[in-house]
Amino acid sequence: MLSAVSSSLLIFHKPFTRALRLPLPKLPISSNPKPLSSLSPATSALIPNARGGGRAGAPSPAPATDDLQKIDVNPPKGTRDFPPEDMRLRNWLFYNFREVSRLFGFEEVDYPVLETEALFIRKAGEEIREQLYCFEDRGNRRVALRPELTPSLARLVIQKGKSLSLPLKWFAIGQCWRYERMTRGRRREHYQWNMDVIGVPEVTAEAELISSIVTFFKRVGITASDVGFKVSSRKVLQEVLRRYSIPEALFGKVCIIIDKIEKIPVDDIKNELKCAGVSEEAIEQLLQVLSIKSLTKLEEILGEAGEAVADLKQLFSLADKFGYSEWIQFDASIVRGLAYYTGIVFEGFDRGGKLRAICGGGRYDRLLSTFGGDDISACGFGFGDAVIVELLKEKGLLPEVSLQVENIVCPLDPGLQGAAATVATILRGKGQSVDLVLENKPLKWVFKRASRINANRLILVGDSEWQRGMVSVKVLSSGEQREIKLDELE
Amino acid sequence: MLSAVSSSLLIFHKPFTRALRLPLPKLPISSNPKPLSSLSPATSALIPNARGGGRAGAPSPAPATDDLQKIDVNPPKGTRDFPPEDMRLRNWLFYNFREVSRLFGFEEVDYPVLETEALFIRKAGEEIREQLYCFEDRGNRRVALRPELTPSLARLVIQKGKSLSLPLKWFAIGQCWRYERMTRGRRREHYQWNMDVIGVPEVTAEAELISSIVTFFKRVGITASDVGFKVSSRKVLQEVLRRYSIPEALFGKVCIIIDKIEKIPVDDIKNELKCAGVSEEAIEQLLQVLSIKSLTKLEEILGEAGEAVADLKQLFSLADKFGYSEWIQFDASIVRGLAYYTGIVFEGFDRGGKLRAICGGGRYDRLLSTFGGDDISACGFGFGDAVIVELLKEKGLLPEVSLQVENIVCPLDPGLQGAAATVATILRGKGQSVDLVLENKPLKWVFKRASRINANRLILVGDSEWQRGMVSVKVLSSGEQREIKLDELE
Repeated sequence: MLSAVSSSLLIFHKPFTRALRLPLPKLPISSNPKPLSSLSPATSALIPNARGGGRAGAPSPAPATDDLQKIDVNPPKGTRDFPPEDMRLRNWLFYNFREVSRLFGFEEVDYPVLETEALFIRKAGEEIREQLYCFEDRGNRRVALRPELTPSLARLVIQKGKSLSLPLKWFAIGQCWRYERMTRGRRREHYQWNMDVIGVPEVTAEAELISSIVTFFKRVGITASDVGFKVSSRKVLQEVLRRYSIPEALFGKVCIIIDKIEKIPVDDIKNELKCAGVSEEAIEQLLQVLSIKSLTKLEEILGEAGEAVADLKQLFSLADKFGYSEWIQFDASIVRGLAYYTGIVFEGFDRGGKLRAICGGGRYDRLLSTFGGDDISACGFGFGDAVIVELLKEKGLLPEVSLQVENIVCPLDPGLQGAAATVATILRGKGQSVDLVLENKPLKWVFKRASRINANRLILVGDSEWQRGMVSVKVLSSGEQREIKLDELE
Repeated sequence: MLSAVSSSLLIFHKPFTRALRLPLPKLPISSNPKPLSSLSPATSALIPNARGGGRAGAPSPAPATDDLQKIDVNPPKGTRDFPPEDMRLRNWLFYNFREVSRLFGFEEVDYPVLETEALFIRKAGEEIREQLYCFEDRGNRRVALRPELTPSLARLVIQKGKSLSLPLKWFAIGQCWRYERMTRGRRREHYQWNMDVIGVPEVTAEAELISSIVTFFKRVGITASDVGFKVSSRKVLQEVLRRYSIPEALFGKVCIIIDKIEKIPVDDIKNELKCAGVSEEAIEQLLQVLSIKSLTKLEEILGEAGEAVADLKQLFSLADKFGYSEWIQFDASIVRGLAYYTGIVFEGFDRGGKLRAICGGGRYDRLLSTFGGDDISACGFGFGDAVIVELLKEKGLLPEVSLQVENIVCPLDPGLQGAAATVATILRGKGQSVDLVLENKPLKWVFKRASRINANRLILVGDSEWQRGMVSVKVLSSGEQREIKLDELE
């Protein structure tokens, strides 16, 4: 029951020399991984001159430009063009995201890239807020280019309400924007693959999500010795905070502070927690718990009655059944930087230690009520298109996806341009891709182009053959050439 | 030589009841076209409160929001969500755009949705300028959400310079934004399919582009009696203007004025032309020429020596060879609303006369030099995702693309959740899509879900079978049920 489409994908596990049948567009792949030009680091640093709510700018008039202007030929700072070679790689990556989502029975969705600013503003002091790409539109509405997809998902779920059949299993591949300091490999836009399960309170949902990411890694050739997942639960922190009678309302803020633990000195963390109203005793206990890397140890400290330990034990048991035990490990220091997580949180990391988190996600059972909706249990992950490409490059796993057009059709003199058009139309009608030579070019040029586009066949339309209803077909791999009747061409 | 992928597409010509093998994601299609919820008109009108260069807004602080807020659950005015049913239609449409582009040997590209504002500002007074979605970013740069893709293409071509092998045949499917008055069917964002040929001065390029659009129409079931192309050349106007010694620099502006001929009274057109500096005599001649619908008549007036007539005659001759003569007609009133066209212009229209232009394009041989680059001959078209869907709906040609997951896997008691995970992993490893039931649900619920997701098989994991290494597999179409060994499952 292997379909043509899905079976072809197994091939991606290893570099491969034959052209592959891949849908939209066809992506032949060779054994010679190459670096991507689009990945050259944008090294110039830029410090945003405003924080928080964003700067819409003084209402200055648009610059008076002339028709004849010298423009900056680069895309705006932090953004990318996708010339064909980079677009093929993007399509290859997205194709793998989509195929994994399909295998897991998830449905694709999308939301506007421009949303109401309020959708993204939470008061926990997340990094995301400071980096919001926000504006005021001509109708005086505060809008923002989305920095993440989850709030839009929540908005749509509330909007659709009872018409939805739970659980929802939705995925999206969307562009997200963050106005942040430019450093190597950090851009202001990236694409993010999200998978979310809405309506399942059990840990089976998180286990399923991690399984889908593992499936993706395996497809593209990444193994458990290359990457792993660190897993914890926000409930660990919650149980500690509850012991010290710290109010629930502080929870999101505490998590955001603790998430910075590997980025800023521990004394600064302590200070921030103190300012937030956490007692010194609680801070010490928090930091002690955060250093735990074993579930047994966690159970010793928190006891076995709590949900944190029970959830984590169930997740590790399911991981075994899904077959990805060797990919995951407990690590209490994993908290994640978004305020809305409430349960299991996880992060995919490079075991080489060179790269930032590859992906991350968790449970967010109470996001909908923060928007005024009824809560529905939910979990999901985000997986960006930047770090994974860095990793694939490093491991020599980036495929060389090259252009392939099946036929090149060329008239042998300008008067036969119409005849060549007829030939191209016949072939295209039969599902064959055709690069039609649109100008009068010497044969040498045509062969060079045929090679550049990896054509299988060169079809020459010459006067004497055409009179007889024939064309000359040359198979480029073998050099074999013969005349074929127009109505036998396929 | 029909591949599995391309052959399956022929089926789209007629509505069809069997599930189709379609790549990413699979799109089963049934014979029952249905309207799309996303197409409900956004009827409330809104008048932009500023023109021209755009209003970035006063630098007001962001609203102080609380974590607990009531948000507007609708996407921002003029934008769309794509819930699964709408996303399937979008994927179906884009799949057809991509497949046609592939058949014609075009390579996919993309550009940032956010570009420098200056890229889109031309002084000809185009509608597009007044509708620019422009802002000032935190770095005080004037930026705009792209209203069209062609300027970005030109920018990238200049940037890549001599490293490109001409001709380029590029396509893109990108979201474009216009801040415009909201009326029925008019939104502020839409997706646009573009195909461009860069580096071919001959009319063969335009002929090829129109051929690709015809191929698209045929694929989705639209015939020459549903739609047609009106074709003219900007050189017609140019030759008239030259006779009256009107300066070249006025050309773009004159075209933009004339493009409004069907939207505003002819006296207003005359007035605008007069204000632009065109003599009354020239205006009369222009208007007379614009009413011509026959190439023979045009030749009588302009003479046979000019390029306008020669280009158009060649295009009509090629159309015959490509096999789409019945789709195109000469109409001198077609000018198109963008300043940069220099030669052939064309527009796809609904013969029913109800809808706006479906697509449009033309030759723009001098766009690159307006950005400070060396000119390269070029032509292309834009094809939006809105009018075509209206047309398909009207003709009853909208496919019902429904979700299809091959298997639904369900544990018969909560203790078997891990076993069900193992089964799902085995099937997914063999390329089968699986909806794994993540909660403890009654069988009645499971059957309902199986039906909603159009599953082929229901796989039940029960205790006694599991002990023997078996699962129960029920084929849902026939009701046939049998036990299968785990290692024979495929």
